[in-house]
Amino acid sequence: MKPEKKHKIVTFGEILMRLSPQDYNCFVQAQQADIFYGGTEANVAVALARMGCETSHVTTLPDDFTGASAKGHLNRYGVDTSFVACNNAPLGIYFLEQGVVHRPGRIVYNRSHSSFAETDPDEFDWEKILDDASWFHWTGITPAISSGAFRALKDALQVAHNKGITVSTDPVYRGNLWQYDADPSATLREMVPLSTVFMGGPEEINMLFGTYFEEEEFEDAAKFLMAECPVIRNVVQKTRSSVNASRHEIASRCWDGKRLYVSDPIEITPVVDRIGTGDAFAAGLIYGMLHYNWDEALQFANATSALKHTIPGDACLLSADDITGVIRSGFNGRIIR
Amino acid sequence: MKPEKKHKIVTFGEILMRLSPQDYNCFVQAQQADIFYGGTEANVAVALARMGCETSHVTTLPDDFTGASAKGHLNRYGVDTSFVACNNAPLGIYFLEQGVVHRPGRIVYNRSHSSFAETDPDEFDWEKILDDASWFHWTGITPAISSGAFRALKDALQVAHNKGITVSTDPVYRGNLWQYDADPSATLREMVPLSTVFMGGPEEINMLFGTYFEEEEFEDAAKFLMAECPVIRNVVQKTRSSVNASRHEIASRCWDGKRLYVSDPIEITPVVDRIGTGDAFAAGLIYGMLHYNWDEALQFANATSALKHTIPGDACLLSADDITGVIRSGFNGRIIR
Amino acid sequence: MKPEKKHKIVTFGEILMRLSPQDYNCFVQAQQADIFYGGTEANVAVALARMGCETSHVTTLPDDFTGASAKGHLNRYGVDTSFVACNNAPLGIYFLEQGVVHRPGRIVYNRSHSSFAETDPDEFDWEKILDDASWFHWTGITPAISSGAFRALKDALQVAHNKGITVSTDPVYRGNLWQYDADPSATLREMVPLSTVFMGGPEEINMLFGTYFEEEEFEDAAKFLMAECPVIRNVVQKTRSSVNASRHEIASRCWDGKRLYVSDPIEITPVVDRIGTGDAFAAGLIYGMLHYNWDEALQFANATSALKHTIPGDACLLSADDITGVIRSGFNGRIIR
Amino acid sequence: MKPEKKHKIVTFGEILMRLSPQDYNCFVQAQQADIFYGGTEANVAVALARMGCETSHVTTLPDDFTGASAKGHLNRYGVDTSFVACNNAPLGIYFLEQGVVHRPGRIVYNRSHSSFAETDPDEFDWEKILDDASWFHWTGITPAISSGAFRALKDALQVAHNKGITVSTDPVYRGNLWQYDADPSATLREMVPLSTVFMGGPEEINMLFGTYFEEEEFEDAAKFLMAECPVIRNVVQKTRSSVNASRHEIASRCWDGKRLYVSDPIEITPVVDRIGTGDAFAAGLIYGMLHYNWDEALQFANATSALKHTIPGDACLLSADDITGVIRSGFNGRIIR
Amino acid sequence: MKPEKKHKIVTFGEILMRLSPQDYNCFVQAQQADIFYGGTEANVAVALARMGCETSHVTTLPDDFTGASAKGHLNRYGVDTSFVACNNAPLGIYFLEQGVVHRPGRIVYNRSHSSFAETDPDEFDWEKILDDASWFHWTGITPAISSGAFRALKDALQVAHNKGITVSTDPVYRGNLWQYDADPSATLREMVPLSTVFMGGPEEINMLFGTYFEEEEFEDAAKFLMAECPVIRNVVQKTRSSVNASRHEIASRCWDGKRLYVSDPIEITPVVDRIGTGDAFAAGLIYGMLHYNWDEALQFANATSALKHTIPGDACLLSADDITGVIRSGFNGRIIR
Amino acid sequence: MKPEKKHKIVTFGEILMRLSPQDYNCFVQAQQADIFYGGTEANVAVALARMGCETSHVTTLPDDFTGASAKGHLNRYGVDTSFVACNNAPLGIYFLEQGVVHRPGRIVYNRSHSSFAETDPDEFDWEKILDDASWFHWTGITPAISSGAFRALKDALQVAHNKGITVSTDPVYRGNLWQYDADPSATLREMVPLSTVFMGGPEEINMLFGTYFEEEEFEDAAKFLMAECPVIRNVVQKTRSSVNASRHEIASRCWDGKRLYVSDPIEITPVVDRIGTGDAFAAGLIYGMLHYNWDEALQFANATSALKHTIPGDACLLSADDITGVIRSGFNGRIIR
Repeated sequence: MKPEKKHKIVTFGEILMRLSPQDYNCFVQAQQADIFYGGTEANVAVALARMGCETSHVTTLPDDFTGASAKGHLNRYGVDTSFVACNNAPLGIYFLEQGVVHRPGRIVYNRSHSSFAETDPDEFDWEKILDDASWFHWTGITPAISSGAFRALKDALQVAHNKGITVSTDPVYRGNLWQYDADPSATLREMVPLSTVFMGGPEEINMLFGTYFEEEEFEDAAKFLMAECPVIRNVVQKTRSSVNASRHEIASRCWDGKRLYVSDPIEITPVVDRIGTGDAFAAGLIYGMLHYNWDEALQFANATSALKHTIPGDACLLSADDITGVIRSGFNGRIIR
Repeated sequence: MKPEKKHKIVTFGEILMRLSPQDYNCFVQAQQADIFYGGTEANVAVALARMGCETSHVTTLPDDFTGASAKGHLNRYGVDTSFVACNNAPLGIYFLEQGVVHRPGRIVYNRSHSSFAETDPDEFDWEKILDDASWFHWTGITPAISSGAFRALKDALQVAHNKGITVSTDPVYRGNLWQYDADPSATLREMVPLSTVFMGGPEEINMLFGTYFEEEEFEDAAKFLMAECPVIRNVVQKTRSSVNASRHEIASRCWDGKRLYVSDPIEITPVVDRIGTGDAFAAGLIYGMLHYNWDEALQFANATSALKHTIPGDACLLSADDITGVIRSGFNGRIIR
Repeated sequence: MKPEKKHKIVTFGEILMRLSPQDYNCFVQAQQADIFYGGTEANVAVALARMGCETSHVTTLPDDFTGASAKGHLNRYGVDTSFVACNNAPLGIYFLEQGVVHRPGRIVYNRSHSSFAETDPDEFDWEKILDDASWFHWTGITPAISSGAFRALKDALQVAHNKGITVSTDPVYRGNLWQYDADPSATLREMVPLSTVFMGGPEEINMLFGTYFEEEEFEDAAKFLMAECPVIRNVVQKTRSSVNASRHEIASRCWDGKRLYVSDPIEITPVVDRIGTGDAFAAGLIYGMLHYNWDEALQFANATSALKHTIPGDACLLSADDITGVIRSGFNGRIIR
Repeated sequence: MKPEKKHKIVTFGEILMRLSPQDYNCFVQAQQADIFYGGTEANVAVALARMGCETSHVTTLPDDFTGASAKGHLNRYGVDTSFVACNNAPLGIYFLEQGVVHRPGRIVYNRSHSSFAETDPDEFDWEKILDDASWFHWTGITPAISSGAFRALKDALQVAHNKGITVSTDPVYRGNLWQYDADPSATLREMVPLSTVFMGGPEEINMLFGTYFEEEEFEDAAKFLMAECPVIRNVVQKTRSSVNASRHEIASRCWDGKRLYVSDPIEITPVVDRIGTGDAFAAGLIYGMLHYNWDEALQFANATSALKHTIPGDACLLSADDITGVIRSGFNGRIIR
Repeated sequence: MKPEKKHKIVTFGEILMRLSPQDYNCFVQAQQADIFYGGTEANVAVALARMGCETSHVTTLPDDFTGASAKGHLNRYGVDTSFVACNNAPLGIYFLEQGVVHRPGRIVYNRSHSSFAETDPDEFDWEKILDDASWFHWTGITPAISSGAFRALKDALQVAHNKGITVSTDPVYRGNLWQYDADPSATLREMVPLSTVFMGGPEEINMLFGTYFEEEEFEDAAKFLMAECPVIRNVVQKTRSSVNASRHEIASRCWDGKRLYVSDPIEITPVVDRIGTGDAFAAGLIYGMLHYNWDEALQFANATSALKHTIPGDACLLSADDITGVIRSGFNGRIIR
Repeated sequence: MKPEKKHKIVTFGEILMRLSPQDYNCFVQAQQADIFYGGTEANVAVALARMGCETSHVTTLPDDFTGASAKGHLNRYGVDTSFVACNNAPLGIYFLEQGVVHRPGRIVYNRSHSSFAETDPDEFDWEKILDDASWFHWTGITPAISSGAFRALKDALQVAHNKGITVSTDPVYRGNLWQYDADPSATLREMVPLSTVFMGGPEEINMLFGTYFEEEEFEDAAKFLMAECPVIRNVVQKTRSSVNASRHEIASRCWDGKRLYVSDPIEITPVVDRIGTGDAFAAGLIYGMLHYNWDEALQFANATSALKHTIPGDACLLSADDITGVIRSGFNGRIIR
């Protein structure tokens, strides 16, 4: 009710409709689906808004009731949508069969010709959008979608860089998304150096630079990255080991140029909803970096991610007080009356 | 997606959680309830926001997840909640058994000690709230709730009057709501004269002034009212005749000091959701007065009210284009592809 | 909360589980069903208990969780089940596709070898069961089920007759139910003469006595019946004309040996749940005969039946105050707050 | 259980996933959707299979769980899918807000780049597919989708024509579907002359030939059409007048070159599901032409269409016995036990 | 079906409506809630009734459909409600977000001005209510609610004491419930000495008497308590250790003045519904004390509590046979056909 | 989409309707049930059809909408039903309370007089049914149902034997099913020797032959069995150890006359749906034997069974690719995009 509104965080990326059958039904047997809306950057915005931050999500949506519904989702949880563009292409969709125990979750996408894929970069006045922003967050999904999306993001990064805004990135690489004529590594290498916080580890660094760091060489990889991209001040990696779809363990580590921070792992079983747990980590990390020291920030990010595994839908919906309460309780899960 | 935002409409009043069993189940047999949020003034704000207007709803909400949910409802449909106060009293609730055919809808309230009933009038800085507003809407429900609610409303009306803001009122009288020590008629008579648009007819005028106008004496009653309250420029009455809970007919008439406008009636059968149909009329009327001439405004208000009878929940959720489309189609209900 | 408990009404008959898909789905497309429990006599008991009467339903149920559930249904709405017998045969079931407009409702039964069909008449001590009863109600369904059910009912009727208890019957004849070796007409003719209130008209009288009364010869048929069965003091017929599955009109008439009472008809559209509307009439009639004069009793019975058409499930769940409130309101269906 | 299987009917066209919120919810407020599968030609195949005919639907589906689900829908109701092709484009989707009373149904499509739009005409061996078929049905939707779909259909029609198979068409024209470079009228004029049964009236004939027949000039229009397309032996038109989304009236007429047949109208209120009612008419007409004389066939087609208005989803799911039972009962909607 | 009815157990306390979103949804995202009814003492009555005992629950309920629904809940599971009082205050409510893994359950109450809080102690004739009772159970919740509730309970305890009825208490202390002007410890100290079975341990004893016993000093604390309250014959403590909201371990111990009984622990994962598991323990203990020796009684109480963790809602719904079957099977969970 | 169709597998047995409350509700509290269809042999057919095999299930179904629904279930997942017989007896039903943690699943059957129990063996022309079949699967459930079912099965086995078709059997013995006058062991001993693959272990062999092999004497028992029944070429046993209803471990072993194959165990927690996991094993085994070597076949069968524990309903619905994908991934449960 009394959220602090000191920092304004801006995110940019696609928001999709998620359709997922209930109660672990396979899609072939389902006659009903839950409707959620999510996208990796939008999930970060929703989580931060629920934590009490001022946020604005920028995207392109169709001018029909599906677009209005996606916008309503963002507004409901407190995300500003003043800078959303619109066109007549359809909303991107993904169908999700939830995984459980040994049965993996399965996703079928319908997003190749979506409203966001048809993004017109000229629709966004980034000077105005980022006018009072203190943080901009992007991921490797956006430039994969289309050249229009890539160009809009590139514009945003340039403006953010010029304004000295903190820029965080989760440079996730998903090969099957890159369907237009672009070299993923080269494209991402144009943008990563404009970022200040890099959320990734050896695998992402190898993908970008063709290096061969092992998972245990996190510190070396981080140093290499920071040498290549002098603007980057922090390299933060979330790690996950999954026994199966219902049982995961998450942890994280950070190199800030001087010191290595390593978190305790958290085991999650049973997993309620796997989607968006990385986005929750990103949101928790941003919130943590804005309010806490590094040890606390990693812990807050881990807790946010762990708690997202228990929340249906794509985004964490807890307040910062909820999350710190869980940390203070030692994650004991006791009822709060 | 591109709502005009020329006019800002401010509303003030309680928002309640509605719990209603599905599929016409009686409450005694129900094991599930739909959760809606509504309140007569908030419904007006939601409907106007969905039509494309800038709106802000002012109220008091509890500082817990029920309050956050009610706020999320308002935000989802585009209503600003920057000026919502909060306290530790519980959210007002109403339980609704939907009526159908000869079985009447039944409502059980739990609102006597609600968050809104505990409203502290000092929480609201009306100068700031109404700073850029062009319209303020209130109803007779609010002063009935508690002296705190009454005083906050009175303050708002005084500020609105001083600023020359258009003020509309639906001075509905519900006897069983007035549970604090106040004279309903006298209390309402303090506020009605500060309003410019009066949504009511002979019954409401009689209640206020102890007169005995018959329903057919609308014009005389309106003239009497405008003589008593010189600020009032329009008297608009919605009328309803219900054959039973599933079959209603609505119409409306208006006296603007010079001419009587009378609308065609619209028959609605079957009624899907009776709640908030008067609030939809009010929203349609406000929108109509801001955009159309009187004949069109009454038609738009009637159509909005008629369409609300088909929408589950407390508020109309249609865009202005949706409503004008229905009017242009002659209410034929054909599928729009 | 303060039900009068002057009269105790006892009913005897099968209670079945009803499984009906929701939202007018055909069974072949359904993956979920609503679970209800009902039976013509049990529905009368439930309706009377909800009206505020003391009631006891006697039946045979299986000794498993389906039997416990059926018993829980009766208890929930206030019906005593102290005299329910149990065995190891399965609960009778019926599957219902709800009808709507021109599509008829369809029922598939699974009751031939049900727990009630296996009723052992020696399980019931009718002297004790009817000890403080003032009314016993039975229907033509029970003797159709099995010879055990028939014999138990015959015993009950003999005891009720000896005790001078009012006995009402709805001697409905359903040919396809009579699957054991018995002559339906002869069997019913053994029991109808032990009853005081006959709920039926020319069709039922013709079935019993092989007469050929036309529908319009109600009075003559009633006189004939009362001559044949001197114990009968009232012949009451409910009539129904259905335009289609969603639109019915009901009415009723009564011959009390001296005067013909004819009710006004009530049109019901749309019908929500057609099942048990005759049982609701019977319950309303019993309540009416215990509390009102004949004109009022017919009106109360009609209103109860009309209102049941709006309630999901097999029984009317309204209080006597609810029903008289509807009558007083002129059936206008206005919300009660 | 023992359907006659004398005639085999083949249909070709797109099958879409339908996602529609329940209980008349607007999409912007919905969090769940019912999943159905339908398409105008597939609906005809499903309805005919449920009536007891042998049917095969030919289409292109994605090779993922959405495609498997659509295929499962067809199989479930008895339609053969041996000749379904597959590719990697996504399943076409439509979102439906159900209309009710004055609120129109609204559809948002996502089908421009669907699996069916990417149809490769070389995937279909029509000689084999139509080997033992006695009827082929197509509509004007298919050639509108893409040039691949058009060419596949054209191939099918040529083979059907050569084999002397009865060909029926519903040459519906939906302007906003034609998004590839083709002249709708000219394209349809290539195919209509290869058909034997034309389901349309003056509007469709005018669209095809640029004529100006009025609705009341049905017979003249039909004669004109049969002169232009000598292969056509029957012109059958279904007509509909809708008071609003909940209240429709349907009827039909037929010119067979010699005589005009005109059916009685059927009023439907309330409408449960408007979608696919024309397809149900087509299925009823095909079944009727295979089994009855013209008067009976029109009546059967009308009844099938009227009954589809009461069935959730896109296709009629009734058996031929169900439908003739309704006709014999005079559409009275009485429960069948 | 054939419950033994030798013992009659009477309970007194508030029954609340529980509204909880399904499928682990957060309240802010929920649009539906399951409706349950529960209260710590009512849950004991329901569990004992389902086990086969005769029980009566005494409380105050509103005279509206919410009160009727709460009463229906009690009746459905076999609890007598003959002695329930009623007034016009609203039913107490609690909103529950179910906890899962590290996310704690959260409860928001609306009970301060509930029907039960407005209890009039003069409404209860305890001589009559306890006439044939053999056991009375109360908890520390009731005296916390209001002075009226406290006085009614005090009256009941005095009468029970005079009649020599066994009295059990779970003297739970919840600080935020005590909102009227009373000293919790002193108030409870007035009533605990009138009880024969004390369900609590060092924490509860410390709260009552200001002592400082450690958890491991159970026996010493119990001896102290029995010295202070000579009427107490048994001190029974349930213990719980929760890894998180989805994984608990429960156990119990008892001091009977002579011997210490300690149970084996039972691990429960995953927890389905945490609410009422302590009440299930109390019910199991009462049943066990009435039928078994101490070792068996503790085991039965533990099993009842463990099984409640798997049942949605507030009360255990298993029969005594179900529970002993689970114990005999070694808790192996194998399907029973 | 492109299933291989080289092998045709025929199964014979009852298909029942399963009605199970959702969300772990006890039946006594449930008001809705999920509708599934299943039977041990039908589940094998469905699983094999979904894996891509050609299958036909033979059974007897009622000639009503419940029978049509069961048939629709089989067709939906690709099972041929050309040889299904029908009669007028009701569909067999089972009610299932899902077990969870220490609470066991509970089943109540209604199948004694079902359509399948009334099977007329003369309805099946096994020469035709098995004409192009390569595999026939039966279980010990079928001969337990009725003498008609037994005789039909015996006929099938004789024909299959004569044709040299591979015959697999799961000779499960359920004592309470054998309600007609037959000696279970003797009856099964008539049929087991006509089978080539025996799915069972020491317990089943002891039941058949009155031997006393211990669980660890699998190899000896298998040798004994193969000596008694020279047609049997493989003895395959699935083993299960359950900690509780939510946590199982499964494994398997096989004796092929020469070598013992023993699989690794798989732990499953939490179990989503326990029903049909043995049938899934049988289906996986049949598929594996048709495509792989013994080590792979056992692994495939185990994986199929393990995965079935995660799928609501009675049958595994995964494709062979889905299952091999899980095996290749090491059962890690990672999302597949």
